[in-house]
Amino acid sequence: MKYDQDSLKQMDKRHRARFINSVIGTKPALMVGSQNAHGQSNLAIMSSAFHLGADPALIGLIIRPSESPRHTFNNILETGCFTLNHITADIVEAAHQTSARYPEGECEFDAVGLEKEYLNGFTAPFVAQAPIKLGVTLVEHQLLAVNKTHLIIGEIQLLDVPENAVNHDGFVDIIATGTVAVTGLDHYVQPTSLKRLSYAKVDRWPEEIQ
Amino acid sequence: MKYDQDSLKQMDKRHRARFINSVIGTKPALMVGSQNAHGQSNLAIMSSAFHLGADPALIGLIIRPSESPRHTFNNILETGCFTLNHITADIVEAAHQTSARYPEGECEFDAVGLEKEYLNGFTAPFVAQAPIKLGVTLVEHQLLAVNKTHLIIGEIQLLDVPENAVNHDGFVDIIATGTVAVTGLDHYVQPTSLKRLSYAKVDRWPEEIQ
Repeated sequence: MKYDQDSLKQMDKRHRARFINSVIGTKPALMVGSQNAHGQSNLAIMSSAFHLGADPALIGLIIRPSESPRHTFNNILETGCFTLNHITADIVEAAHQTSARYPEGECEFDAVGLEKEYLNGFTAPFVAQAPIKLGVTLVEHQLLAVNKTHLIIGEIQLLDVPENAVNHDGFVDIIATGTVAVTGLDHYVQPTSLKRLSYAKVDRWPEEIQ
Repeated sequence: MKYDQDSLKQMDKRHRARFINSVIGTKPALMVGSQNAHGQSNLAIMSSAFHLGADPALIGLIIRPSESPRHTFNNILETGCFTLNHITADIVEAAHQTSARYPEGECEFDAVGLEKEYLNGFTAPFVAQAPIKLGVTLVEHQLLAVNKTHLIIGEIQLLDVPENAVNHDGFVDIIATGTVAVTGLDHYVQPTSLKRLSYAKVDRWPEEIQ
């Protein structure tokens, strides 16, 4: 079935949001932890984080401040840091529930029953239940004029990863950590391993890395 | 196991690339189709596409021109368009193989055995085998000074999606289409459904959408 710009325009707003959010494929689902200068903390699930570079270790994050995670956005600009926390199947409802519009002053950690954890003096709070935790500092922020979203670029300062999930070559096995992902706005998925493939060369077909 | 900036810096370059690429979680794996002004086409697998907005329907893509998909980058700037094509388990080796550094003039479609398809007069080629295909036009391009990567912003002009994968509410079921994803640089995964959760409200716990 083909859709062009006219058929996309004719869709109901929420229908189109579900549709367009789905077609990119599987996205990382991460809980973004932050707090303001007065120590009021916030937690918000996001699926808009992406890898930007390994050296320096950079993460991009798209935030639409007109929608719910306004506190997160303000906190990141105010304190210059945030955390990214992986989600497992047993906390997927709690993680999803952080997207409810809790009023100013109500902490999502308490509201959804997730435990706050502070690591190595990092200002923003981590989620104790998360198997993988990233502490990130703000490097750059820009408003994308095209649709008034904000691009946040951050550098990874701190990583907490279970030792048994790290392969000898540096690869981290997020199947082993039970990390879930998301498709569309609300569909949580569990990745299962197909295979790792060797670095591609023009003169031979890729082989499975055991 | 905790890693700080010092321990990241001390890692071997390739080790760090595998490590940092893994910790963001599951990423979409998409084949980017393009061609230059002379009709020479190119296909390159990328895991750096992200949802940027539904209205207008926008996609972001990070390209590091110093690495292999230089042809793709040049083609996008030259013709102002590209395609994004989903990958299934039966073509995952072919899709991965597009990352080999084929010389100028050699077409990855032919080299890896994927079929080129042109849809609705769109300039850039699609992959016939892909269950979901997106035709995208360039809206904005910027060099991110922080690490010399390029941010490509494109608008979805054309979407080809199997009718039976589209839910009545607009959600597209990429489990039904067999779309795979990637973690790290080379680990292909098949998502399996956990659950869809209802829109989060402060006064009730999310429920499963059937």
